[in-house]
Amino acid sequence: MKIKRSERLIDITHYLLEHPHTLVSLTFFSKRYESAKSSISEDLTIVKKTFIERGIGILETVPGAAGGARYIPKMKEEDIKGIIQELCDELNHSERLLPGGYVYLSDMLGQPDWLRKIGRVIASFYMDKKIDAVMTVATKGVPIAQAVATYLNVPFVIVRRDSKVTEGSTVSINYVSGSSSQRVEKMELSRRSLKRGSRVLIVDDFLKGGGTVNGMKSLIEEFDAELVGATVIAENIYQGVRSIDNYTALLKVKSVDVESRTIQVVPGNFVASL
Amino acid sequence: MKIKRSERLIDITHYLLEHPHTLVSLTFFSKRYESAKSSISEDLTIVKKTFIERGIGILETVPGAAGGARYIPKMKEEDIKGIIQELCDELNHSERLLPGGYVYLSDMLGQPDWLRKIGRVIASFYMDKKIDAVMTVATKGVPIAQAVATYLNVPFVIVRRDSKVTEGSTVSINYVSGSSSQRVEKMELSRRSLKRGSRVLIVDDFLKGGGTVNGMKSLIEEFDAELVGATVIAENIYQGVRSIDNYTALLKVKSVDVESRTIQVVPGNFVASL
Repeated sequence: MKIKRSERLIDITHYLLEHPHTLVSLTFFSKRYESAKSSISEDLTIVKKTFIERGIGILETVPGAAGGARYIPKMKEEDIKGIIQELCDELNHSERLLPGGYVYLSDMLGQPDWLRKIGRVIASFYMDKKIDAVMTVATKGVPIAQAVATYLNVPFVIVRRDSKVTEGSTVSINYVSGSSSQRVEKMELSRRSLKRGSRVLIVDDFLKGGGTVNGMKSLIEEFDAELVGATVIAENIYQGVRSIDNYTALLKVKSVDVESRTIQVVPGNFVASL
Repeated sequence: MKIKRSERLIDITHYLLEHPHTLVSLTFFSKRYESAKSSISEDLTIVKKTFIERGIGILETVPGAAGGARYIPKMKEEDIKGIIQELCDELNHSERLLPGGYVYLSDMLGQPDWLRKIGRVIASFYMDKKIDAVMTVATKGVPIAQAVATYLNVPFVIVRRDSKVTEGSTVSINYVSGSSSQRVEKMELSRRSLKRGSRVLIVDDFLKGGGTVNGMKSLIEEFDAELVGATVIAENIYQGVRSIDNYTALLKVKSVDVESRTIQVVPGNFVASL
């Protein structure tokens, strides 16, 4: 049965969105719709134009009969800035202030719509880098890692402070917790979960002293893997010297006053790096 | 600027896919494309037909000028069965066997493609139920909860065995661990994370004795919330009497032989419930 252009455009859009960063061949689409490659090429030109105009992303097209298309979920800079501003507005509420000056974020990290936005923003930033895996530490980092990994279409791995029998054998390291107490803690990663030589992106919710990110860095070294970058949702206020300097943060907690119950969150150094 | 039908179809498809279970009005699309509602209605008819034919899902259309469309990511029964068979094939490998007869699953729960499939399958199953939140227990359940919640477009909440200062005040319960040792353990949930009266779907990776699911049930009662259902990826072999009976499992671990290193995974009771 011959498929009309309108139906092809809808199905091509769905297929590409579910397979980001993947080269899909003209041959594949041509068979799927029993249509000539020349027709598919025309379809892809329309999809490409619309994806850019609507801020959906970039469609890289590889020309020729052996060619195809690859969807890169890159956002427009203005859309990224818009989302970061939305995040600030959402966090700038006194009810989010917790005892000890912490900021409550868990509800947002359980909302698919926020996670889609956060995932797209961070994945856009790293779209040109070769990344093999996203790494985070349990528990609050997991939704962020999953969201970013979904848009980059790579696996994500979860570092744990306590590992379970269901993880198989693990590699563990000790690290100095960044908090003032300078405690030595342990983190571990299932041996099967990361291939040697992988290029790894670290993501997490908050950055305070940087101890956790530093621990993950050591683990990456243990696996003979390579660190590509580290991005967190928010960097917290920290009086001491951070044990890492090479990171980006979408947001920065500028001030927290527990007495007057006020909190001020502003865009982080991520925006300047765009 | 007037937008052509072909471009509208692509953008409508993207928009609906990113907003499942949400009624999007004709007025919204009409303004977005500066097009007549009658044209948008025709667009939606084409999208609806293609979504069904391609197994993308159902587009519920609400007629009239005040109407609109709602995308429900329901899969065809044959596609669901296909995915469950794929999962069996993937797990039926002796390398997945861990000491103690456990099955290694963590790699799959870190792969966006598997998570999309698992999320769509479980969300399809509950598409007709009113669900306000998906609940799971840290850590391995989190990716499953996120995947299901994304397709249901509702928040997910994470029950923890150890809570952090960044969770704010919590409600905790004690439960009997389903394992043979009958240990009493504790689990807790941030008070802010679940509204009273919420209708909750529980998901998790493995079910053994059922203790963890039972613990989550008690927590749901503590929040004056209501349990809608419980679905796990796989039910493990269990000799004793399970403390819960009302659950569905995509897969069933039928036999595990540590000596000969063989493992047999078959479709679970989920398939019969379709």
